[in-house]
Amino acid sequence: MCRWIAYRGETIPLEQYVTAPAHSLVVQSQKALESTASTNGDGFGMGWYGEHPEPGLYREVRPAWSDENLRYLCRHIRSHLYFAHVRASTGTPITRPNCHPFACGQWLFMHNGLIGNWARLRRRVEALIPDSHYGSRVGTTDSEAVFLAILGAGGDKDPVGATSRVLATLTDLVTDDGHTEPLRFTAALANGRDLYAFRYSANDKANTLYYRESGDNVVIVSEPLDGERSHWKPVPPGHMIVAEAGSRVSCAPFLAEHRAAAE
Amino acid sequence: MCRWIAYRGETIPLEQYVTAPAHSLVVQSQKALESTASTNGDGFGMGWYGEHPEPGLYREVRPAWSDENLRYLCRHIRSHLYFAHVRASTGTPITRPNCHPFACGQWLFMHNGLIGNWARLRRRVEALIPDSHYGSRVGTTDSEAVFLAILGAGGDKDPVGATSRVLATLTDLVTDDGHTEPLRFTAALANGRDLYAFRYSANDKANTLYYRESGDNVVIVSEPLDGERSHWKPVPPGHMIVAEAGSRVSCAPFLAEHRAAAE
Amino acid sequence: MCRWIAYRGETIPLEQYVTAPAHSLVVQSQKALESTASTNGDGFGMGWYGEHPEPGLYREVRPAWSDENLRYLCRHIRSHLYFAHVRASTGTPITRPNCHPFACGQWLFMHNGLIGNWARLRRRVEALIPDSHYGSRVGTTDSEAVFLAILGAGGDKDPVGATSRVLATLTDLVTDDGHTEPLRFTAALANGRDLYAFRYSANDKANTLYYRESGDNVVIVSEPLDGERSHWKPVPPGHMIVAEAGSRVSCAPFLAEHRAAAE
Amino acid sequence: MCRWIAYRGETIPLEQYVTAPAHSLVVQSQKALESTASTNGDGFGMGWYGEHPEPGLYREVRPAWSDENLRYLCRHIRSHLYFAHVRASTGTPITRPNCHPFACGQWLFMHNGLIGNWARLRRRVEALIPDSHYGSRVGTTDSEAVFLAILGAGGDKDPVGATSRVLATLTDLVTDDGHTEPLRFTAALANGRDLYAFRYSANDKANTLYYRESGDNVVIVSEPLDGERSHWKPVPPGHMIVAEAGSRVSCAPFLAEHRAAAE
Repeated sequence: MCRWIAYRGETIPLEQYVTAPAHSLVVQSQKALESTASTNGDGFGMGWYGEHPEPGLYREVRPAWSDENLRYLCRHIRSHLYFAHVRASTGTPITRPNCHPFACGQWLFMHNGLIGNWARLRRRVEALIPDSHYGSRVGTTDSEAVFLAILGAGGDKDPVGATSRVLATLTDLVTDDGHTEPLRFTAALANGRDLYAFRYSANDKANTLYYRESGDNVVIVSEPLDGERSHWKPVPPGHMIVAEAGSRVSCAPFLAEHRAAAE
Repeated sequence: MCRWIAYRGETIPLEQYVTAPAHSLVVQSQKALESTASTNGDGFGMGWYGEHPEPGLYREVRPAWSDENLRYLCRHIRSHLYFAHVRASTGTPITRPNCHPFACGQWLFMHNGLIGNWARLRRRVEALIPDSHYGSRVGTTDSEAVFLAILGAGGDKDPVGATSRVLATLTDLVTDDGHTEPLRFTAALANGRDLYAFRYSANDKANTLYYRESGDNVVIVSEPLDGERSHWKPVPPGHMIVAEAGSRVSCAPFLAEHRAAAE
Repeated sequence: MCRWIAYRGETIPLEQYVTAPAHSLVVQSQKALESTASTNGDGFGMGWYGEHPEPGLYREVRPAWSDENLRYLCRHIRSHLYFAHVRASTGTPITRPNCHPFACGQWLFMHNGLIGNWARLRRRVEALIPDSHYGSRVGTTDSEAVFLAILGAGGDKDPVGATSRVLATLTDLVTDDGHTEPLRFTAALANGRDLYAFRYSANDKANTLYYRESGDNVVIVSEPLDGERSHWKPVPPGHMIVAEAGSRVSCAPFLAEHRAAAE
Repeated sequence: MCRWIAYRGETIPLEQYVTAPAHSLVVQSQKALESTASTNGDGFGMGWYGEHPEPGLYREVRPAWSDENLRYLCRHIRSHLYFAHVRASTGTPITRPNCHPFACGQWLFMHNGLIGNWARLRRRVEALIPDSHYGSRVGTTDSEAVFLAILGAGGDKDPVGATSRVLATLTDLVTDDGHTEPLRFTAALANGRDLYAFRYSANDKANTLYYRESGDNVVIVSEPLDGERSHWKPVPPGHMIVAEAGSRVSCAPFLAEHRAAAE
């Protein structure tokens, strides 16, 4: 049960959402309110887009709340699209490659959730990653495997379609063989121009997700960053946020047909 | 507001108090009950005595709860006298030399508490460390400075007397110049044979301390390690535990005359 | 190109081979003489057997030469069979789970060498790990995959046979498809009583290995620990050292038939 | 014996000097050519000026050569004035606060050199830091103490004068009492607009320093970053580089009168 934020809009310093708000992501690393894990101290990471064609990444195994580097970087790095994530491990080791966000080419991904019984299902999930993307697997998390499976399924060209296909397959996988494992997928995906966020689950409650719009700026968060809760709209379970360049931000059903078909 | 345990008795694996109990020190690192800091994730450390004349030390900046090395070491290292500490920093950096316990020659020391307004008083406290011991100052905490001041004041020969003298001086220091800064000192000191623990404060409430005896074994803790609270005797404020080799464990007043004189 | 030592014999402090000798493993971490990588600063690790049924493990991503914990632990931990390893990564990330030695049940393994073109062959090597052992894969190195493949091939009951079978398969794999990738395997395997070390390669020169016997004690090393080179016997390429409990240490051919058959 | 680079000029990505050149600072961290320490693997750091009034800082205890974060940051952070440093400790612990550069207000400082017999002289050097700056001492190095002494001596208003006064005092200190300790000071100081670099020593040879100008851009380095040695001008011992905003870069004697007077 991690906590994360994603931002797309005017170019701003990362601190505006990562360290400055009353209930900033860094505060949430020590005291989250809507998470089963009140401490998110198993490493953290940030990913951002700037002038370089590929995103920047800063990941660290120490807790976010005591990292001096994080404060300096949030103050100095400015971006029009960035991710930040504080981790509460569900079992995989605390290493930098297991910290979110994950980067591959121009894509960034981060995740709050899990694939239940990862030890048993891991091989089958890793088999969803095509050879073309398996070399990019540098860590051992379920999250990174799902990310590479999405890119391998054509996420590059059709992010929503590929995410749907992979999540449909995972939904089948966790209910296979008479087992019913939980699948929770509250995740964000971006390519430097477009930002997608998903709130989905199977066999369990979906992890919370909120967003706040103001003009063309959108912030998507695990839990509100301040007490003004009326500004933060909850994303319903089974829905996604699509914030594509040049279009209005929309909130739409995600995988509804698949779930309908399955029921 | 840190949490710690100290043990003296039969030779046992460190895990018996550090990782195994229901409310073990490692559990307290994530969820302490009697501490103002519910998370003690700013590094940790262990010190222990074995066959080598000087104590062993293992200190790390990551939180105790996710350190695999800690689990292995607690299982394999056996000792008749050991310390373990999880840290919630009161402002000094998260570095290994700032993690407790501190070692100097055959002495170990650890501390839960603080010297209020350390930035202002630091120089005067560091001036209490004689040149003979200043080379042993490898970190920047108030705790390490107090430890070296105690050794410099003759702690080697007369640990209780030297600790009293230094704490009396500190008590004067924090109430000097019309200022009234808090001083909290819940600390343990050992030399491989004898173990001393102190619960003292000036201008503030003293941090909690409990102990449990069974035969010649004694465990001294910031907060009870299990639900059987009747086994754990609170150490009253202004008291100390003396567990010297060949004598019975005793609980006696600490610095009472000094406080009486001051009032 | 890493450096390692393995010891079996009387119970001694780890420091006797890890930190004390003139050209100790820790010195080699900064200046190895017979290695293509003169610096082995990409993490290190130790594994040892004591009273607990499973081995102890201490692994760290920082270089061995500056780790104060390592010095304390080597002084205090005593063992009759231990491994120590300093790493020069061949590409996989610097994380604790990627540091050697690796532990699984009562087995320890460490490796100096590589499987050429790991990105291309990784999936096929990982496929050699049976499901029963795949849950123990916590890192991403070729070395850990080979270890788990050996255990999965019955290494538990027949360590030399299983290692031979897995290395024969790997030898075929690296020469498959018209490719000729190097395979270098200078490795140690132990279960707390028995110690095995191998020096093997295909399509490349084998990494160096030496040993020194004195009574029932045997030390096996990547390169001699002191200037008395006459004490250190080189293990010839394609040979192994077998040091089983209750038997004399022997040096015997390893995989010779397989190579003969292949030529 | 550390290695460093300082740059002032057009705004460029940090990678241009830190990671990209053939003999970049990161390459020097593993194989320096003109240093007594061939490995500079005891941590590293970068400081840079951007839009925020205070400089950014990224410091880490791991070696520069294996830090993925460093590569991402060097690619994404752009600056008109920046420092980078790889450390070979002369004895003080490997902690982030002991890594260079050091920041205080709008000033950055980094150093290659040492004050001989630091254990003996430390107290007297720390006494040069006025109370106003002692709260900024977060580490334990001689370098940080000299930096804060310079700022305390008026470095803010008169950087060259204050550096001269402090170095004159240090020169006296290291030759005091019949002792003759080495003092080596090859250092850089900046405030976001102006850049100063010094090559000085007493009782020892001065550590190397080179610079390269091109238009208004200047790069100052411990050793040349490429094989075109003709482009790199050596700074003579007892000289400094002054690169103030709006003036031409100049190389001038540093502390010559003091040395003349002393001889």
